Amino acid sequence: MLIREILDVITEGKFIMPELRKDPVLGRWVIISTERGKRPLSNGKFDMERKGGFCPFCGGNESHTPSEVLAYRSDGSAKDTQGWTLRVVPNKYPALQIEGALSREGEGIYDRMSGVGAHEVILESPDHDMTLAKMAEKDIENVFWAYRDRVLDLKKDKRFKYILIFKNEGEAAGASLEHTHSQLIALPIVPKRTSEMIAGAKAYFNYKERCVYCDIIQQEKDEGTRIIEENNHFIALAPFASRFPFESIILPKQHSAFFEEGQKQQFEQLARVLKSVLSKMDRALEIPPYNMMIHTSPFYENTAEHFHWHIEIIPKLTSLAGFEWGTGFYINPVPPEEAAQFLRQP
Amino acid sequence: MLIREILDVITEGKFIMPELRKDPVLGRWVIISTERGKRPLSNGKFDMERKGGFCPFCGGNESHTPSEVLAYRSDGSAKDTQGWTLRVVPNKYPALQIEGALSREGEGIYDRMSGVGAHEVILESPDHDMTLAKMAEKDIENVFWAYRDRVLDLKKDKRFKYILIFKNEGEAAGASLEHTHSQLIALPIVPKRTSEMIAGAKAYFNYKERCVYCDIIQQEKDEGTRIIEENNHFIALAPFASRFPFESIILPKQHSAFFEEGQKQQFEQLARVLKSVLSKMDRALEIPPYNMMIHTSPFYENTAEHFHWHIEIIPKLTSLAGFEWGTGFYINPVPPEEAAQFLRQP
Repeated sequence: MLIREILDVITEGKFIMPELRKDPVLGRWVIISTERGKRPLSNGKFDMERKGGFCPFCGGNESHTPSEVLAYRSDGSAKDTQGWTLRVVPNKYPALQIEGALSREGEGIYDRMSGVGAHEVILESPDHDMTLAKMAEKDIENVFWAYRDRVLDLKKDKRFKYILIFKNEGEAAGASLEHTHSQLIALPIVPKRTSEMIAGAKAYFNYKERCVYCDIIQQEKDEGTRIIEENNHFIALAPFASRFPFESIILPKQHSAFFEEGQKQQFEQLARVLKSVLSKMDRALEIPPYNMMIHTSPFYENTAEHFHWHIEIIPKLTSLAGFEWGTGFYINPVPPEEAAQFLRQP
Repeated sequence: MLIREILDVITEGKFIMPELRKDPVLGRWVIISTERGKRPLSNGKFDMERKGGFCPFCGGNESHTPSEVLAYRSDGSAKDTQGWTLRVVPNKYPALQIEGALSREGEGIYDRMSGVGAHEVILESPDHDMTLAKMAEKDIENVFWAYRDRVLDLKKDKRFKYILIFKNEGEAAGASLEHTHSQLIALPIVPKRTSEMIAGAKAYFNYKERCVYCDIIQQEKDEGTRIIEENNHFIALAPFASRFPFESIILPKQHSAFFEEGQKQQFEQLARVLKSVLSKMDRALEIPPYNMMIHTSPFYENTAEHFHWHIEIIPKLTSLAGFEWGTGFYINPVPPEEAAQFLRQP
């Protein structure tokens, strides 16, 4: 039985408000959201295939998504009509609800919070056959501008503390629609992994009075073995302690804690380095599914000196999976030096 | 291209010593082990199916595994021959190497350690058609005795600080062989998630002077909505902040930090509760793949008062996956109260 069928039984068609719950031992927040489970993700089939070729994300099908919150249109076309090159819409099956006050409550030893947040979809192209790797650099740059525009807008809402920007490419990476898109989730909490990253970077800074990511960049440039790609503003690396085969990170060379403070010239070069890394992945790994995410600073923490924003890309190679999911402990069969070399080869 | 094929190119057939590497920001250790990637896991096929029906884990095929380190034999049969009811062998494709001294070295800002450890496979039954859920309670109990026997033996080796005991059931959960088995990995480090769990439990203890898990059991018994199964010695719950649909944990009611200190009567009842939970999962979720692991104390930490060992079971439901892998942030579409109710129904 599919999760979706189970949910139909469980919820009896009723709407259940999403909520955030905190693990009392690990301090990790989790979103419990039945709406999310109702999205039409079938057993091993993209929605599009099931529906005989119809895709709600294609240009011309604007009426099949919620109304857009942002669109780039160079032809002066009207809102929610064809003519856009990039479009941002609320997620039809959101993990969180945008309306409502942020309430917290205890329940004995447990903590919960109302599931208030934004969940948006960035349609990167109107063309169904496009992928981020294949897009023109200029169009990839626009994806970053759209991320930035949405972050700056959502930052005004004082209920939110963090925005998670991520992309699931391919069904095995969790995408329910084939058409190229990314997502953002604005959260009233800071995810545990983000907090840990910032705490780790801060501890290093307190000890060394230097940014750990800046030191990583320096050492990687000296060694050279884990560099995948580089330009004036960015460096792409296979991390020293990679958890997954062909995992990579893209770091700005100039220290900066906030993705959204990126400058025009930076985004141009970011688009270039990302296209290059994704193209290398597509070539070497035969167009793998992947997860991409932006690690940036929470809004209300003074991270300027010690945190350094970056992008993480994890190809999901189907012949490997398993207990890492449950245990949080990773075994990686591909040394990052070898992964970088394999990706670098022309 | 499969990881295995890529590894053949990368390693050129040479053996590369596994090593442990530490993430300089998050402090998380990762095993880099090319041998592990060489196991005959094909693209979407269990090894057995590929080999036309031959299974090295079946009774009678003892010569196709490394020599046993433990076996339960009631018929007086000889080592590495047929007649066993349970058998433990070193993993043929180990993540770590048992031989060698434990050496640590720095490399600029990075830390690495020789990949010394034990990686063993527990063959739970000689019968290829058996599953843990279908096994007799007595045989399941023997699996726990085997875990315990191996832990007590490996604990004597002072290079090891922690033993991870886990089971991947089904291909989607990471199993490369269909025949029912579990694994253990003895590590020279304590995994990050274990450390975090212990630190969280300690912080709670310092504040309340009570074990957080004992308090969870008390509150869950009072509320009742998240209980899946219960007997005198154990309780199975859908955790309040479940990350995954139908995630469950089994806790001993009597406070104890170490799995391996379990008593005879406890293991009998543990076998009973585990069989019941797995059977409910098989019935409600149509024999899902799953990961199971034992969370127990590291060897050399004084956790007696604040830590409480337990078993975690995570069904891997294929219609859900995705960005959680990369982000460490979880969206769960099935409220644990509903999951528990769904599993409880006869």
